[in-house]
Amino acid sequence: MSKPLPETMLAVRKTRSEPGLWLERQTPVPRIGPREVLVAVTHAGICGTDRHIYEWDAWSRSRVLLGITVGHEFVGRVVAVGDAVCRVAVGQRVSAEGHIGCGMCQPCRTGNGHICEKVDILGIDTDGCFAEFVKVPEENIWPVHPDIPDEIAAIFDPLGNAMHTVMAAGVSGRSVLITGVGIIGLMAVTIARAAGAGKILVTDVSPRRLALAKALGADVAFDSRDGDWPRQARAQTHNQGPEVLLEMSGHPQAIRQGFAALRNGGTAALLGLPAEPVALDLPNDIIFKGATVLGINGRKMFETWYQVENFLLSGRLNLAPIVTHRLPLVEFERGLKLMQAGEAIKVVLEVPGR
Amino acid sequence: MSKPLPETMLAVRKTRSEPGLWLERQTPVPRIGPREVLVAVTHAGICGTDRHIYEWDAWSRSRVLLGITVGHEFVGRVVAVGDAVCRVAVGQRVSAEGHIGCGMCQPCRTGNGHICEKVDILGIDTDGCFAEFVKVPEENIWPVHPDIPDEIAAIFDPLGNAMHTVMAAGVSGRSVLITGVGIIGLMAVTIARAAGAGKILVTDVSPRRLALAKALGADVAFDSRDGDWPRQARAQTHNQGPEVLLEMSGHPQAIRQGFAALRNGGTAALLGLPAEPVALDLPNDIIFKGATVLGINGRKMFETWYQVENFLLSGRLNLAPIVTHRLPLVEFERGLKLMQAGEAIKVVLEVPGR
Amino acid sequence: MSKPLPETMLAVRKTRSEPGLWLERQTPVPRIGPREVLVAVTHAGICGTDRHIYEWDAWSRSRVLLGITVGHEFVGRVVAVGDAVCRVAVGQRVSAEGHIGCGMCQPCRTGNGHICEKVDILGIDTDGCFAEFVKVPEENIWPVHPDIPDEIAAIFDPLGNAMHTVMAAGVSGRSVLITGVGIIGLMAVTIARAAGAGKILVTDVSPRRLALAKALGADVAFDSRDGDWPRQARAQTHNQGPEVLLEMSGHPQAIRQGFAALRNGGTAALLGLPAEPVALDLPNDIIFKGATVLGINGRKMFETWYQVENFLLSGRLNLAPIVTHRLPLVEFERGLKLMQAGEAIKVVLEVPGR
Amino acid sequence: MSKPLPETMLAVRKTRSEPGLWLERQTPVPRIGPREVLVAVTHAGICGTDRHIYEWDAWSRSRVLLGITVGHEFVGRVVAVGDAVCRVAVGQRVSAEGHIGCGMCQPCRTGNGHICEKVDILGIDTDGCFAEFVKVPEENIWPVHPDIPDEIAAIFDPLGNAMHTVMAAGVSGRSVLITGVGIIGLMAVTIARAAGAGKILVTDVSPRRLALAKALGADVAFDSRDGDWPRQARAQTHNQGPEVLLEMSGHPQAIRQGFAALRNGGTAALLGLPAEPVALDLPNDIIFKGATVLGINGRKMFETWYQVENFLLSGRLNLAPIVTHRLPLVEFERGLKLMQAGEAIKVVLEVPGR
Repeated sequence: MSKPLPETMLAVRKTRSEPGLWLERQTPVPRIGPREVLVAVTHAGICGTDRHIYEWDAWSRSRVLLGITVGHEFVGRVVAVGDAVCRVAVGQRVSAEGHIGCGMCQPCRTGNGHICEKVDILGIDTDGCFAEFVKVPEENIWPVHPDIPDEIAAIFDPLGNAMHTVMAAGVSGRSVLITGVGIIGLMAVTIARAAGAGKILVTDVSPRRLALAKALGADVAFDSRDGDWPRQARAQTHNQGPEVLLEMSGHPQAIRQGFAALRNGGTAALLGLPAEPVALDLPNDIIFKGATVLGINGRKMFETWYQVENFLLSGRLNLAPIVTHRLPLVEFERGLKLMQAGEAIKVVLEVPGR
Repeated sequence: MSKPLPETMLAVRKTRSEPGLWLERQTPVPRIGPREVLVAVTHAGICGTDRHIYEWDAWSRSRVLLGITVGHEFVGRVVAVGDAVCRVAVGQRVSAEGHIGCGMCQPCRTGNGHICEKVDILGIDTDGCFAEFVKVPEENIWPVHPDIPDEIAAIFDPLGNAMHTVMAAGVSGRSVLITGVGIIGLMAVTIARAAGAGKILVTDVSPRRLALAKALGADVAFDSRDGDWPRQARAQTHNQGPEVLLEMSGHPQAIRQGFAALRNGGTAALLGLPAEPVALDLPNDIIFKGATVLGINGRKMFETWYQVENFLLSGRLNLAPIVTHRLPLVEFERGLKLMQAGEAIKVVLEVPGR
Repeated sequence: MSKPLPETMLAVRKTRSEPGLWLERQTPVPRIGPREVLVAVTHAGICGTDRHIYEWDAWSRSRVLLGITVGHEFVGRVVAVGDAVCRVAVGQRVSAEGHIGCGMCQPCRTGNGHICEKVDILGIDTDGCFAEFVKVPEENIWPVHPDIPDEIAAIFDPLGNAMHTVMAAGVSGRSVLITGVGIIGLMAVTIARAAGAGKILVTDVSPRRLALAKALGADVAFDSRDGDWPRQARAQTHNQGPEVLLEMSGHPQAIRQGFAALRNGGTAALLGLPAEPVALDLPNDIIFKGATVLGINGRKMFETWYQVENFLLSGRLNLAPIVTHRLPLVEFERGLKLMQAGEAIKVVLEVPGR
Repeated sequence: MSKPLPETMLAVRKTRSEPGLWLERQTPVPRIGPREVLVAVTHAGICGTDRHIYEWDAWSRSRVLLGITVGHEFVGRVVAVGDAVCRVAVGQRVSAEGHIGCGMCQPCRTGNGHICEKVDILGIDTDGCFAEFVKVPEENIWPVHPDIPDEIAAIFDPLGNAMHTVMAAGVSGRSVLITGVGIIGLMAVTIARAAGAGKILVTDVSPRRLALAKALGADVAFDSRDGDWPRQARAQTHNQGPEVLLEMSGHPQAIRQGFAALRNGGTAALLGLPAEPVALDLPNDIIFKGATVLGINGRKMFETWYQVENFLLSGRLNLAPIVTHRLPLVEFERGLKLMQAGEAIKVVLEVPGR
């Protein structure tokens, strides 16, 4: 009943070992296996990771396969399913988890596929979603609730990172410090507020992002270049420090200051990725404090996705100020440049239907 | 009914800012307040901390009050109680928790006095137990079960450190790596075995301690100078690495290798105190792994003490090989030198009654 | 510096084995021991328990000591402290935990004094606070933050029951069913909302209380006499049922229906006290469901108290509609009758100063 | 490379609505779908559930489909796989999880397929393993480690029930009461011992099973008909009661006595299935106690299976005395009668290869 699929498509690809991403107009449409699903992408979010690949930083050079189609945040319509697919149907509006586990290891078989050692990541290890079509395994498909608009469905992946961090730490009734309010940090502010956090403190170097964090529910905002902020953060929290640290900057100094501010017995959830080893004062930062530190990777499959859906449907999240730009797919580079300039927070690319 | 208390007593004290500890014969017997208890010490354990103070290392110089009586592990008899003491009686055989909380802060009032920010530690901040008498607040007293012998009751404090670490991490049915099998690491081996650990792996530089760890229940022992041990540790644990890391060495390299070996989704409990900042590869060591890291300080009051008592009474702990020497108090320095020489593991000092 | 204490005082007492409570004008002011504190009560809340004692139901007859001064929810000023009291001072504004543990048992020594087997309860086992003065052990005193008004400080005890239930169950991001919205159930609604609950469903027989619950943040209200409500509750929660049940009615039918509605894998926290054994279909209600059931007693000392303080200071609780009446102490019986008539929710008694 | 499959096979079936099970010699071999696996059964365990179906009790009559092949505990060799199967290969020795989830609901997608509301159970809802061949979905297959003997691999399913119960309750260092030491209760004894339990107490009506429980590691055994045993159980556990209750009898009286014995703050894990509603004294059994009650259903997929494998490979489980009989498949009825007579504990049926 669906119209025939084309042979080729538009795709944004990493084809040369140098800064840049390139739009190709004749990329073959992916062929699906018996347990795979082909999705016609309608909207895709640009992630900080995509920007790293665009800028071709050290991490990208060591990790990304040349020739890959990039992008991993999206929503679209199912246009084809493999012969053995039984839980997804053509026509469904879907997003997908971008961590593709091996399905056989202990993490994959115990509800922890997000930490599978052999995980492939969409848009890094396998062709991604900055294209007219993307294929994903049936197990990774997430049917999107009809009440959730496309531009939000397109960013379930980073929302899931923020949700995973907030829910793993446990913020209900506890004071929370978020170091770094970029895209995911800002999402964490509105999620933490909806999840019942007590006082929310944030740090960043950008006055604009700090102001936005306050608009989303943060109680106190600190410029992280003010070296005195950890002391002030303690003063704001009964002189004991915040009970929860959500580390979303990846900056060594912010990490160290976040630990210094953290309350004895507190919980630190680490999501930000430092580019180099970070020297920690383990006795004072973690051991004497009796702290709990949680490494956060991806999203729990699919506990985090249900949480994202539920919070969205509750109407208690405020994401409108975070999605600052909508651009057609072909203007992806303008989106990346807006992010580099600090003008854009989250950019959603729109893929015109055929 | 008890005989009159003397005015002065023997005490081992830190009286000069140089390496050494000195026996004083005319130290005043402590005066107790209305909520304090005076204990006639019968047995006291020498801790690594006491050795640091003896050696007068950088930490000791920055932390220890000159003129203090050292020692914090002991058992003895109550010889006097303050007017308002209602839960302890003269004649009881007791040990005591050495972390003296303020009693008023949130940690103290929520069962977490071990991480009170104003904690005083016996033998560091206040006069300790290498003496004929020691005073402690009533709240810190632990009545010792009659079936527990004195030389074990004297070392409840370090046993409690090991117990706290093992129980916080949760070893039941899980593979466990213990990096560093000094006194507390060895205690952790026998406790982890009794607490239901799966395979137990240990690392150390001392062949003697490694052999002792195996005698106490470790399945595999690695010389930590063999840089390949993390790979072998993974091979021993379904090629995924141990599920639990108990870090008891405080050595930066052991900490990094322990994290490298740890399974995705695993738990690391940190007890060992590095002398300097440790550079960690946070993405690979903690974040991508989805690891949980726990800082362990002291003992939970008094959950840990009940656990120590219960495990001891079960007969499932093997501590005999750990208490290698018993010496009279006046020979404390010989004990310290035996520890320095690697001949002694745990030394228990005996205090003759009057 | 404080004026001399009188010899006698006003007190509301249970002096005869029949329905009623009686105001006595010549009750001796309590004498404090060395570790006790005397508080001049300024405000006291009437609890459902006080009403049971007033009505002299089967439970009261079997449990309450004749001659006791009743009441256990209060705020007041410290007017005297025992010789050994060191953490409370004359003049402080305080409330107090009404569960007085033995201080020596395992629960008391592990931060679980609320479930001490030898617990004495203020106003039941020992003279309570419907009087000009009440004495409590120093350990039970809770200093009240200056930003918290008296009539709220007076009801920390039932707020603590609600808080303990909500926080033990864990409502952040989860759908919640509250069966029974009397005083504590209504408090649980506003707390659950502030603590980040998803959809909140409530049941009760009183239209007035159901309407109040909706005003406080409940999303859906069911008349519990409508036997179909569990099905509707499931329809409201993705056809799976609420993830959390807070049972606050003590009614056998509500308990059974609450379990029937509960989602597989859900959590039920039981606070309401049925007057008789309740027949449960354990396989379908709990076992096949993989449910977790938590018995909730009192308040955690003092974790719950800190939570109450923090939520109050956040400004996110709405308690104004719950405190419906303020009466002078001497009109306590009018307060009880207003409760019996369903006109009052929470009545706060005001004790005039001398 | 494998020899051709026959058209028909031996199978033990429930074909008539009356007590009994019947061996059929011409049952069609199951046809597999693209994601299913066909296993040639070599060994199968007889479960209490099979006995209920044989005896055709009220539960069976209301639940079991006439015409079904029974049995759900087994090990065998894969002889065929569907076209889309990618994680299982012909020739593998495998067992399988008997709970077949829908794969689409929240429990199934969050690692909790054992409590899927639409679960089908092997040998109850779909043809089981008392046959030469059984088909199961690929996702349910569990490859068996080569070091585990067939007769143990055949009983992973009930071992998993016991393991799930023990690990959910958390026995490490805690005193444990097991009410009912039938097959699964006995397995729980040896598992709890290996998992680090403190004192283990058991109750049953059978002196033989009580003696066996002691041989497997129980410290104290009570005849459950002695109404005084809960008091004695408390006496054995510091006069506070056991910290953990594993309820494996399904008998109302045992359940009530178990709760009465349980320590304040303790954990009860319920596995036994009462045939009728059980009247509980909720205030004293659960609420005042601050107890945690866990409903246990099936096995966690596949966390429990990994735990079973790890404990078996550790050599710390003693299952030899539990598997009392090995019989050829055709003698299944003798096995059932041995169980009825109390002569057999676990019977393993052997299926001769073709």
